[in-house]
Amino acid sequence: MQIYLDNAATTQIDEKVLSILNKSLKEDFGNTSSIHKKGKEAKEKLEQARKEIAKTLNAEPEEIIFTSGATEANNLAIKGILKASKKKDIIISTIEHVSIKNLCEELQKEGYTIHKIPVDKDGFVQINELKKKLNEKIAIISFIHANNETGVIQDIQKIAELCAQKNIPFHTDAVQSYKKIPLDLKKIKLTVISISAHKIHGPKGIGVLYIRKGTKIKALFNGGKQEHGLRPGTENLPYIRAFAAAAQLPYPSKQIDKKKTYLIKKLKEILNIKINTPEKSICNVVNLSIKGVNGETLVRHLSEQGIYISTGSACSSGTIEASHVLKAMGLTEEQARSSIRVSLSKNTTKKEIDETIKHLKSIVPILRNI
Amino acid sequence: MQIYLDNAATTQIDEKVLSILNKSLKEDFGNTSSIHKKGKEAKEKLEQARKEIAKTLNAEPEEIIFTSGATEANNLAIKGILKASKKKDIIISTIEHVSIKNLCEELQKEGYTIHKIPVDKDGFVQINELKKKLNEKIAIISFIHANNETGVIQDIQKIAELCAQKNIPFHTDAVQSYKKIPLDLKKIKLTVISISAHKIHGPKGIGVLYIRKGTKIKALFNGGKQEHGLRPGTENLPYIRAFAAAAQLPYPSKQIDKKKTYLIKKLKEILNIKINTPEKSICNVVNLSIKGVNGETLVRHLSEQGIYISTGSACSSGTIEASHVLKAMGLTEEQARSSIRVSLSKNTTKKEIDETIKHLKSIVPILRNI
Repeated sequence: MQIYLDNAATTQIDEKVLSILNKSLKEDFGNTSSIHKKGKEAKEKLEQARKEIAKTLNAEPEEIIFTSGATEANNLAIKGILKASKKKDIIISTIEHVSIKNLCEELQKEGYTIHKIPVDKDGFVQINELKKKLNEKIAIISFIHANNETGVIQDIQKIAELCAQKNIPFHTDAVQSYKKIPLDLKKIKLTVISISAHKIHGPKGIGVLYIRKGTKIKALFNGGKQEHGLRPGTENLPYIRAFAAAAQLPYPSKQIDKKKTYLIKKLKEILNIKINTPEKSICNVVNLSIKGVNGETLVRHLSEQGIYISTGSACSSGTIEASHVLKAMGLTEEQARSSIRVSLSKNTTKKEIDETIKHLKSIVPILRNI
Repeated sequence: MQIYLDNAATTQIDEKVLSILNKSLKEDFGNTSSIHKKGKEAKEKLEQARKEIAKTLNAEPEEIIFTSGATEANNLAIKGILKASKKKDIIISTIEHVSIKNLCEELQKEGYTIHKIPVDKDGFVQINELKKKLNEKIAIISFIHANNETGVIQDIQKIAELCAQKNIPFHTDAVQSYKKIPLDLKKIKLTVISISAHKIHGPKGIGVLYIRKGTKIKALFNGGKQEHGLRPGTENLPYIRAFAAAAQLPYPSKQIDKKKTYLIKKLKEILNIKINTPEKSICNVVNLSIKGVNGETLVRHLSEQGIYISTGSACSSGTIEASHVLKAMGLTEEQARSSIRVSLSKNTTKKEIDETIKHLKSIVPILRNI
């Protein structure tokens, strides 16, 4: 038995995506920079994929830059805009993904000033606190759209309006929300957005940075002229096409949300738990604290049964620190350490949820007695 | 008909590599940072691939850092070492790949001093000129191992010894030479080396930076703890495994070299040409100038016949500048513009070479009369 409920960490590649990817790996071997037919064909397919991704965001193709993933996209967004600006102040939230969090810690060492906006008990950025910080010294603001640990969704439309009023570039890490929440960039005035293929049943190692036309930004790498010189290096066309294919797949948010509601109901029936995921959250993530149980121990026990879930974010698992996200929401160290994240996908069945509930019901009391 | 003779730009993926890649795309979907079994399995396979690549260089697994390709590896090597150093002087050659060349032009704008060592008429770095420049102010030296346009091989063992004597970090871009020339890093005291999968029948979008133990280097990205924190972001395990598989394939240098010798002989028989590739060069690249013919026009004409070759490097094709490499070797603007690069692979047949020669024989006189 194998029940994979760690889809916020990464997803299994979709069969349709895999089939396009395989075809591309065989056929599209030309280098887009070559001027012969094999090169031109590759270049055309690259631009077709760019158009397809742009369409999912109601963006222009030239606003789409392919990167090696979301960590690179996040770094390019923040560092790239800072390189093109003379300003030294940055605003983020207290619940950013480790790539933005650690990047900002590094930037602080380099002389930048980081302003962290607190969140309320449900994980929502406190807009009033943000308003106080908005001034002409701010180079960039970055808030994660849907948090990777709890799934909480920020009101990026409202924040984007506030930023636009003050002419401050606004970045969002939309890795967890992409395709789950519609994002119309003609309506929402975001400046830069990071997305990734591997959270929507595409391959790992390919991301996109959306950059609104007119944004001042500089490359992190130097080299060839690929991606308008903003991301040089021979393009990974098969993965780019696979990303476009994954982006075209319908994302059944409503069905997954029903499974999530069912999961939460069942969890509450069997266990004394605290749900850390608020109502306004993406369809596939549930974060909960189970009193008296160490989250990491529980994850390892379930893994032995073939059930794969997570403690907080996958990227910080294995470290001994309790989740900074949960602590920022006011959870105690103990509550944070007793948390697990269950994340669903379109492939998750009711039977798998029932099986997981059954195992939790039998394991939790044993772990509580240890 | 399709004759692909642009293998220095990129190669077609090998069937064995593709089969391992397909398997991995389906099976290895766990995130290496996850603590459950799917994560652990992925992590084990990642470390196995790292060992396999290390072995091909006689290096230690922990000296291998996976990147999204050679452009990133080159940038990480140079910028990463500069970030960890207080020194501001850099030595390169006049025939570097565009990723190092453009990177150094950017660094110059940022206040670094770039010393360019000239090459002789065959493209060999003038060691005596290098010796004059070696002093305690130099932060890093970077010379391309086998040039991407002409295939000329530098004496990196000798240069490495000179650098080691002065304790100067030495980087080589070994993208074109990897697997073609044995590289034993226990014997050759290189500090950092960039390699890439897609030149040896692996996929595009995966590279390695070898970093000798004890080297002071800082990351270009911030984020998770992947790759010792030197290259954060969810690892592209299927491509990493495919790179390891491609690296395990025997590279039939001798057979390809025989084809190259045959090609040069045939070219000389039919055309008045100047061979820009010296004797000491990698087995698969021939660069030549054809008097009175524009290289780009010739490439386009051959492409219409289904024969794919290149003018200079693929990355700079399409731009109007003549090759900086050929000009550095003393070729005139006209000679540089009349150059083409034919690059072979293990898949190249004698029949394909004969067919190419036949087409060149008929097309060149026509182009000369235009």
